[in-house]
Amino acid sequence: MASVTPRILQGFRDYLPETMIPKERMLRTIASTFESFGYAPIQTPALEFAEVLLGKCGDEGDKLLYRFRDNGDRDVAMRYDLTVPLARLVAMYPQLPLPFKRYQIAPVWRGESPGRGRFREFLQCDADIAGSESAIADAEVIQVGCAVLEALGVPKFLMKVSNRKLLSGFAKTLGLEGRAVLGFFRTVDKIDKVGLQGVLDLLVTENDFKHEAVERTKEFLGYGGDLASLDALQKRYGSEEEIARGASELREVFGLLEACGKRDNVVVDVSLARGMDYYTSTIYEGVLREPAGFGTVVAGGRYDGLVGVFAEKPVPAVGISVGIDRLFAGLQELGLVKEEISPTRVLVAVFAPNLAPASMKIASDLRRAGLAVEVSLSTEKLGKQFKYADRKRIPVVVIPGPDEVARGEATVKVLASGDQIAVKQDALAERVKTLLQGV
Amino acid sequence: MASVTPRILQGFRDYLPETMIPKERMLRTIASTFESFGYAPIQTPALEFAEVLLGKCGDEGDKLLYRFRDNGDRDVAMRYDLTVPLARLVAMYPQLPLPFKRYQIAPVWRGESPGRGRFREFLQCDADIAGSESAIADAEVIQVGCAVLEALGVPKFLMKVSNRKLLSGFAKTLGLEGRAVLGFFRTVDKIDKVGLQGVLDLLVTENDFKHEAVERTKEFLGYGGDLASLDALQKRYGSEEEIARGASELREVFGLLEACGKRDNVVVDVSLARGMDYYTSTIYEGVLREPAGFGTVVAGGRYDGLVGVFAEKPVPAVGISVGIDRLFAGLQELGLVKEEISPTRVLVAVFAPNLAPASMKIASDLRRAGLAVEVSLSTEKLGKQFKYADRKRIPVVVIPGPDEVARGEATVKVLASGDQIAVKQDALAERVKTLLQGV
Repeated sequence: MASVTPRILQGFRDYLPETMIPKERMLRTIASTFESFGYAPIQTPALEFAEVLLGKCGDEGDKLLYRFRDNGDRDVAMRYDLTVPLARLVAMYPQLPLPFKRYQIAPVWRGESPGRGRFREFLQCDADIAGSESAIADAEVIQVGCAVLEALGVPKFLMKVSNRKLLSGFAKTLGLEGRAVLGFFRTVDKIDKVGLQGVLDLLVTENDFKHEAVERTKEFLGYGGDLASLDALQKRYGSEEEIARGASELREVFGLLEACGKRDNVVVDVSLARGMDYYTSTIYEGVLREPAGFGTVVAGGRYDGLVGVFAEKPVPAVGISVGIDRLFAGLQELGLVKEEISPTRVLVAVFAPNLAPASMKIASDLRRAGLAVEVSLSTEKLGKQFKYADRKRIPVVVIPGPDEVARGEATVKVLASGDQIAVKQDALAERVKTLLQGV
Repeated sequence: MASVTPRILQGFRDYLPETMIPKERMLRTIASTFESFGYAPIQTPALEFAEVLLGKCGDEGDKLLYRFRDNGDRDVAMRYDLTVPLARLVAMYPQLPLPFKRYQIAPVWRGESPGRGRFREFLQCDADIAGSESAIADAEVIQVGCAVLEALGVPKFLMKVSNRKLLSGFAKTLGLEGRAVLGFFRTVDKIDKVGLQGVLDLLVTENDFKHEAVERTKEFLGYGGDLASLDALQKRYGSEEEIARGASELREVFGLLEACGKRDNVVVDVSLARGMDYYTSTIYEGVLREPAGFGTVVAGGRYDGLVGVFAEKPVPAVGISVGIDRLFAGLQELGLVKEEISPTRVLVAVFAPNLAPASMKIASDLRRAGLAVEVSLSTEKLGKQFKYADRKRIPVVVIPGPDEVARGEATVKVLASGDQIAVKQDALAERVKTLLQGV
């Protein structure tokens, strides 16, 4: 009978209620954390002119774009992240009061090879500040990242902070230039996956590094942890202008975080590279320490050059992106995700077809009292209606039987205990609320 | 300097904070209304296999699809509505307990000619019930539509209800078949735009109607309003099986709505046709009565055949879609949309660079007390920082000056009045909250 097979594209997902209900709850927590720091919501289109997106996220980013010609033969692409559209937006509306603090929660699309934890459509939750060069802005977005993880109940996380000038300045001391620098970043970026030795090996096989360069990289990547290590780095590389600048910017951001109460889960990590080409100085990544293996769950950095691609005047910017999918999976493994399949708290049974209006009326009254209420859509035997409530984990059933209705009453049944009592209809809402507190 | 012009595709929109903040508020109201009736949230992919979407929304729908070949040469399309993906989903997960009540709030894409109020990307807010044939389900989704409009504060609306069997049964009495029936629906559907006489004229020019058929259509479209008119219709067309069935189904739905307290803004309107091909019986549309000219703001109907396209067994379904964009525009015209440009309630000024940590610390404390707080990102003169607060309509500024900080205090300034007082830092949150109540 079916004429079309029901299926979805690989790398795409349906969210059924049992995962969508807790995910929505997480998204509300993230949004309200962003708002508590003064970020305002915006939305941008899913489709942009391809030229807006091309060349901002590296060659790989360009390859992964969902890019096509629309019905009007325009060269268009689905957004790859939320940062490039923000840069386009800031350039397009010069009347926006700066600094502009916005958040956006929206799906992005990347034609990745699907694999464990890699999807072609996933939600990004980004908060960014455009129009401020201040280190306060850098420190704040890192604070926001920590605040989001804390608000979601993540028990243990590590926030690694660096400044891209450190690694790029170091790359210069190796004589690297242009694309070779980006290639170097990309190899170092794999340190979480392949470890330090793995990176050193890849530098030989993929980046054509000689022995001495590998040794010097090994020494450089050994710096990190706290401010003392940054001191040592500054002493060793103080004559290299870019490294010195990166170290001093990082010191300022890190100093602000320390002074306003950062805990020891925020550390300096000079091996941080970040994949995106557009980052210019502060970069950071947060990972779960428990459970392990979920990779980066929040990340971001400063990208002072991106808005300038679209605008006459450059606009400095810094931001953070929360990876809700990985966080959700991590929290699920920790047992911190409460699965629910329905928001309904009360089912109003329908005793017989002619009593459906009475049930609908009672349901309306209960909703007005703030309860989430379903009316049974079947007029079958009550036992079947109870079974429906049970399957949907609805704790309370109200049964307006003919005798009760005649007396202005209804029976209330608590499914878990099987207890049932007759209640006057005008006292029903309060009574049901009390019963719900007990289940 | 700019190398790419910042622009967006025609028919697509950026939502800046001043419109996004009130829009988010409306979306939360709509979602919680859906949840109060027991609908659970789901999400489906933006991209589907083209075959899933093709042929469900009529020839015009197919033409308007954003359809392309992805990097893996798959024939894919961006979703055109939320109903077809729901039908695909219900067929794909037979383990879902039926009746399945879900809502989804998500953008859809249609390559329409952009024009006043017509966009190529817009948000749909849909609530549907799959797996119930009961008239209670039909009545409920209409109730949901009314409840959404009431919750949003719409002062006057009209909900027009019909049953597609009326118009399709009547089409048969005219001898129409197949595509000619759909063409007839589409012409009648224009009645809101061109009026009854306009429809009758179009029937001649576009549907090749002869004089007698036009006269009969005119008489038929005259029925409607209340149950009495439905009685008259049944008497006149009682021998036409499909019309009789449509009238009796409509009577049952309308009867339930009456019995559980519908007001006189819910009426029978036999001229309703609805554009989508998939509707099979109950159909309805809600329009604002004040202000006029915003067209349909909620609409839906029963589509018992759609899931069967994807499944071995048919699954009856009925739903409602809320047009947030038109509603937003309508409420804006009524002055019911409160524009805001920022969620921030408090700005903590930075007196001097070395006092930035003190400001960040105070901001953290205020956030913990539940306030939305920004730290000034500039350490310029206080006057400029006040100006920033003023431009972003932030009512209260906290100033931790060096003397105050030394005494464990901070100055609190209410911008509207200019009043300022020194407050102990540990009493700051409560004091600021009290002051905010007064602004």
